[in-house]
Amino acid sequence: MTTLQEIMSPKSIAIVGASDNKARIGGRPLAHMIEQKFSGGIFPINPNRDSVQGIKAYSSLLDVKEDLDFILVAVPSQIVVSVLEQAVEKKAKTALIFSSGFSEIGGQGQIYQNQIKKISKDSGLRIIGPNCLGLFNSATNFYPTFTSTIDRATPKPGGISIASQSGAYGSHIYMVAHQRGLGIRYWMTTGNEVDLSVGETIQLMAEDPDVHSIMAYAESVKDGEQFTKALDTARSEKKPVIFMKVGRSEVGAAAANSHTASLAGEDVIYDEVLKAHGAYRVRSTEEMLDVAYATKPRIFPAGKNLGIVTISGGGGVLMADAASDEGLIVGPMPEDAQDELKQLVPFASPMNPVDVTAQFFNDLSLIPKFTDLMLSKGGYDALIGFWTSVAGSPVLSKPLLSSLKQAMKGYEDKLFINCMVAPEEYVKMYEKEGFPCIEDPTRAIIAMSALMFFGEKFNLNEAKQDFKKNDHVIKMPKKKLNEIDCSEILRAANLPVVKSLQIKNLDDLSSLFKNDDTKYVMKILSSDIQHKTEVGGVILEIKNIDQAREAFKKIHKNVNEKAPKAIIDGVMISPMIKGGVECILGAKIDPVFGPIVMFGLGGIYTEVMKDISFAEAPVSSDKAKKMILSLKSKDVFFGTRGQPSVDIKSLITAIVNLSNLIAANFDRIDQVEMNPILVSENSVIALDALIVTK
Amino acid sequence: MTTLQEIMSPKSIAIVGASDNKARIGGRPLAHMIEQKFSGGIFPINPNRDSVQGIKAYSSLLDVKEDLDFILVAVPSQIVVSVLEQAVEKKAKTALIFSSGFSEIGGQGQIYQNQIKKISKDSGLRIIGPNCLGLFNSATNFYPTFTSTIDRATPKPGGISIASQSGAYGSHIYMVAHQRGLGIRYWMTTGNEVDLSVGETIQLMAEDPDVHSIMAYAESVKDGEQFTKALDTARSEKKPVIFMKVGRSEVGAAAANSHTASLAGEDVIYDEVLKAHGAYRVRSTEEMLDVAYATKPRIFPAGKNLGIVTISGGGGVLMADAASDEGLIVGPMPEDAQDELKQLVPFASPMNPVDVTAQFFNDLSLIPKFTDLMLSKGGYDALIGFWTSVAGSPVLSKPLLSSLKQAMKGYEDKLFINCMVAPEEYVKMYEKEGFPCIEDPTRAIIAMSALMFFGEKFNLNEAKQDFKKNDHVIKMPKKKLNEIDCSEILRAANLPVVKSLQIKNLDDLSSLFKNDDTKYVMKILSSDIQHKTEVGGVILEIKNIDQAREAFKKIHKNVNEKAPKAIIDGVMISPMIKGGVECILGAKIDPVFGPIVMFGLGGIYTEVMKDISFAEAPVSSDKAKKMILSLKSKDVFFGTRGQPSVDIKSLITAIVNLSNLIAANFDRIDQVEMNPILVSENSVIALDALIVTK
Repeated sequence: MTTLQEIMSPKSIAIVGASDNKARIGGRPLAHMIEQKFSGGIFPINPNRDSVQGIKAYSSLLDVKEDLDFILVAVPSQIVVSVLEQAVEKKAKTALIFSSGFSEIGGQGQIYQNQIKKISKDSGLRIIGPNCLGLFNSATNFYPTFTSTIDRATPKPGGISIASQSGAYGSHIYMVAHQRGLGIRYWMTTGNEVDLSVGETIQLMAEDPDVHSIMAYAESVKDGEQFTKALDTARSEKKPVIFMKVGRSEVGAAAANSHTASLAGEDVIYDEVLKAHGAYRVRSTEEMLDVAYATKPRIFPAGKNLGIVTISGGGGVLMADAASDEGLIVGPMPEDAQDELKQLVPFASPMNPVDVTAQFFNDLSLIPKFTDLMLSKGGYDALIGFWTSVAGSPVLSKPLLSSLKQAMKGYEDKLFINCMVAPEEYVKMYEKEGFPCIEDPTRAIIAMSALMFFGEKFNLNEAKQDFKKNDHVIKMPKKKLNEIDCSEILRAANLPVVKSLQIKNLDDLSSLFKNDDTKYVMKILSSDIQHKTEVGGVILEIKNIDQAREAFKKIHKNVNEKAPKAIIDGVMISPMIKGGVECILGAKIDPVFGPIVMFGLGGIYTEVMKDISFAEAPVSSDKAKKMILSLKSKDVFFGTRGQPSVDIKSLITAIVNLSNLIAANFDRIDQVEMNPILVSENSVIALDALIVTK
Repeated sequence: MTTLQEIMSPKSIAIVGASDNKARIGGRPLAHMIEQKFSGGIFPINPNRDSVQGIKAYSSLLDVKEDLDFILVAVPSQIVVSVLEQAVEKKAKTALIFSSGFSEIGGQGQIYQNQIKKISKDSGLRIIGPNCLGLFNSATNFYPTFTSTIDRATPKPGGISIASQSGAYGSHIYMVAHQRGLGIRYWMTTGNEVDLSVGETIQLMAEDPDVHSIMAYAESVKDGEQFTKALDTARSEKKPVIFMKVGRSEVGAAAANSHTASLAGEDVIYDEVLKAHGAYRVRSTEEMLDVAYATKPRIFPAGKNLGIVTISGGGGVLMADAASDEGLIVGPMPEDAQDELKQLVPFASPMNPVDVTAQFFNDLSLIPKFTDLMLSKGGYDALIGFWTSVAGSPVLSKPLLSSLKQAMKGYEDKLFINCMVAPEEYVKMYEKEGFPCIEDPTRAIIAMSALMFFGEKFNLNEAKQDFKKNDHVIKMPKKKLNEIDCSEILRAANLPVVKSLQIKNLDDLSSLFKNDDTKYVMKILSSDIQHKTEVGGVILEIKNIDQAREAFKKIHKNVNEKAPKAIIDGVMISPMIKGGVECILGAKIDPVFGPIVMFGLGGIYTEVMKDISFAEAPVSSDKAKKMILSLKSKDVFFGTRGQPSVDIKSLITAIVNLSNLIAANFDRIDQVEMNPILVSENSVIALDALIVTK
């Protein structure tokens, strides 16, 4: 198995296409490494020169006697394959390809890319790129990259690493991180990802002891399994993955597609997968930076209970709003603690947000007292203090910090984020003592919510799914499936689908109409007819045998007229069922992440409200319940006090069973749709069932 | 009428409670004004001293011979009333009260506050505060404020002004604005608002020629009419009002309530009112600052078509996503223009986002060519350029700026926001040439969307509502209204409510059952019974006269048993109607903003989805249509290609008519609810109607 060390800490590098011109892509990495004093061997390859930037040059890789670990390729696309063949001959471990002109332009470019891929597969040579801006390891001054950002910002030491599909955007992230004072250990861009992907990069970073947080950017993921495994590794190592996935919108997805020539898959699925595997998805670059910054103390609060202490009542209200937006709990202090606070500062608002008022200017000892009360009695998992620019005052900044330090003694597992406007030197002073500082209160709340997200995910002991695939593999008739087939398959998989009968003999139906006044629906049965109603193939409200006989005739007549070419399997009859909440339960194979189960609001609202939750199949009962609870319309299923007002247990079972079905049969089933499925007090039953096979 | 000049540019100021200690609230404003060289007369009032901070002191206001324009009050609450009486005697124009201990503590504090209010009303003395941090006019060095922020940040000249209910938060906004390089002309905090409110402050700022943008913060608005008038004035003066209204969430609202002791009203109504009157509501302080900053060139794009030019494909995708979130249109370039772009840069992605690629490093002349093509052929209202930190390179920054200047020649009404990471000196250079620079791409998009919002609002020529109140005043029976009464009142106001009959004689009903197979519902009629079903007062599915007779008896019997004390007006019968989209149409009197009409999704989804739109009544047909279109579920009403699939015309008429009804009768009607109202292809009809009178 490859390690990050192998790729990022080579003993030697050859630069194929090395240039004397420091502004060119073949010149810049060499210049970076000379300037930053890379201690390994550097071997410029340039057949036209004896030396490049003062270093002896070679006419080809094969002319170098020494071992070569890392080959940097900066030559036109048509030469790349031959360079890689030499790299293999030299037993190099890694080749990084700057060159563009591959899959992103199609045609001959795609052919070259396929050849590169084959070389990597056959030889084990790890390839980064092509069409890639490169990477760096700041600890070893290894800079095989032509980003100009390094000229403007020499990396600082630190444990945060960046994995980015996009080179230019990866450079941007690096630059703003640098300006925020973040030390970036590894920076890796993956370009066309013929071999190394952002997913594997995350895996390698998660396994590297020098990395403590990972920022990642991607427009698409190719290998869903590798990707989720990487996220799981990071989670089990308690390393936050802060993820930017772009292409959420229609225009964005189209732009991403034209940019990377790969279909991105459905954004809601990415959203769910990232969340499920413990990666925090950011909405902006600034948020990405804030969260990465806030991970520095490596404290991830165990819960979502937030205490807010403020010297501005208005600021407190604003932060309470923001916390509510992020799903955090801003619960009140216990009554007795409120009384104590009131005794300390009569004008204080002691609820939470706790408003210390301007009184704290006069007596900084109030801060430790307040903070201690909030931590010891409030039961908060973390605190945010809003000090405005008052904390930037030369008179108050240091005493406030001492007070905070004193207050936090004994609460080393709790995080305290300061929200303050202060000169950089003061901020650094706070940071050094383990207090992150974020100027804007809303941004501070969002960063805190991300840390709480990680805290929740890192502490999760999800029981390993007990899924025996063979228990759920089904027999599939070797024919086009009609509605009866679909419903029988699903019923056999313990899914609640209304029982329909194929009508063999009309007389058999007499028994149906004996007992009660159930009404029936009769439908034409044909896998050739998609829209049965449109051809007069559905008749409702059948109450007795006479109406049944008539309907049978009429359906045949209608279909005969309107769809004369359709192959007819027969006619089916099912009881009409009404009442309950109209839902949709389905499953499908996502091109990236494989089997997916989905549940949501049905009927006319499915499309309009898009209130549907997704999960990778198979799911546990717990996860199925979480899917229901994550719906905006969840109150439809849960009455007052969170008690189910419908048959939640059967609904959960249905979700689990469908997830098992799709997970075990993903090679034969492409899609399942039970729509509508009626969920009511005493039952869960699908009225219609569709299976699309591969 | 008061002007901002009168309050903010007095010839003289008296400071009652002036202190020698520059850290105290009675000392700080004096220190500020001495240091900043306020040129008007300064009269410290302190009975215990001959001079304060080197200036001759007086023992009371009445001891001052000279005229006093502005009285600053920094004495305990119990003395404030007497000081104000002296201020009135001195014919002062304005009194500003720092002191706390008024309505925010209740009891005696409330009594003092009422006395102050009376003095202001009786004398015409304008009062700011109490419980207020003060204000400043940076152009005249007038600093009656005890915020310490001024010590750390002397205001720069500029045209942006700040109105804030909260002093501490107002100080915070000022500080971050200052750090962004924004010149703040007027800064005013209003505290308990016994007289001057944030609303009137906005009005005064909108009328002042030196103000070009207004940042405002409020937890609540007391006088809705004054507030909306102020926003309208700002809009007609084309001055952006950038508004932060906090207390959106439950916890936030509770905190705001305990903070300012005023109920905030419903947040959704604030949201609608701010939007309707052209104020842009921000979600964070940072957004407030970004938007204020972006208003500096005073260009407000006429539409929402955004062109994006980028040197990072990934950045383009990210910005397209953000633009979509904000409802902007990122439409593609016309085909011929795309071809031209492709000729200039073969690797470019010419759609929009237009990806110039790294090619632009080598040939900056591409920028003007690209920009010109986008502006002349793309039809975009504004552009954003994403340059990463490349624009911060000493080699590229100036040439890029020249290129941009050249490109924008002839497009002076278009805005170009630069998204770049660059040293402050370069940013200032860009700003000077009219190019705002916002580092984060998402923030740049949001700021742009705010400018486009103002552009839309400033250019709106909404026809003045032709509302003749007297045409809509209705007669109300002087009794408790039962369901028949309600439905008759609404029907008389041309609202579609199903026609119900009060049953006088059962025999009269025979005619009902003659013609068709309509089913009927029978209900008990009593204004004493709220939940009719629970007392067995509703019977459904009545098909014939026999069932009607039986139902009539049964209802009487049920109600007799279960609600023996209720006064019964009789029994009513109405046809049962099914089908269509279940909606809710209602009206109510908002405590702040008065008559409001509301329309939204009904049934089980009303509470769950909260998909309801609100508007101040009366509304025009246009506005009613906009209300429908603003629903998340609007697609339920509009089929493919935006064509109505239901009877939209009748629905619009119903909304307009209800809005007229509540607007004309707000003094007698408190609430109207038509729920459900069924909206279908051919009809709009309410099945139930409720009027709550005052």
